[in-house]
Amino acid sequence: MERLSEKEILIQLQNLNGWTLNEGALEKPYLFKDFKEALAFINEVGILAEEVNHHPEIFNVYHKVRLRLSTHDANGITIKDIDLAEKISTLQ
Amino acid sequence: MERLSEKEILIQLQNLNGWTLNEGALEKPYLFKDFKEALAFINEVGILAEEVNHHPEIFNVYHKVRLRLSTHDANGITIKDIDLAEKISTLQ
Repeated sequence: MERLSEKEILIQLQNLNGWTLNEGALEKPYLFKDFKEALAFINEVGILAEEVNHHPEIFNVYHKVRLRLSTHDANGITIKDIDLAEKISTLQ
Repeated sequence: MERLSEKEILIQLQNLNGWTLNEGALEKPYLFKDFKEALAFINEVGILAEEVNHHPEIFNVYHKVRLRLSTHDANGITIKDIDLAEKISTLQ
């Protein structure tokens, strides 16, 4: 799994609403009505992550969730991250 | 809800296995077998948090979970944080 160049990443990000490149990962912040909705979203992301065996970093504070995607083995961002970001984007 | 002094916090922490005072919050790291078990734990914590209407910050990376507890309104740590840490400690 080869890591993408910054140029390749930025091209891919044009089609990924709300995702940005931040400190070496694809990142997206989410805001929900309350904790319950935030947790439901985390569980949906978890199902997708298990399906593709690739897992985002998940940060949650009450109604806020922040996801970060990178590929540890490639020490950067790969097409696996782009693919999972696309899948996660279909949840909302 | 009054914030506890550092001394009061450290006394309480003597009875809270694995919790430490770190950068203004009660913090505990957890390590699970895999993501699925980590997510199950997050959901259990979520149920407790909803019951007492007090929510930790939750950080998850695959099989790792880190919880941070503080009371935003009190700008510090209160007995609510100690109580929730105790409840969460009964999960494992």
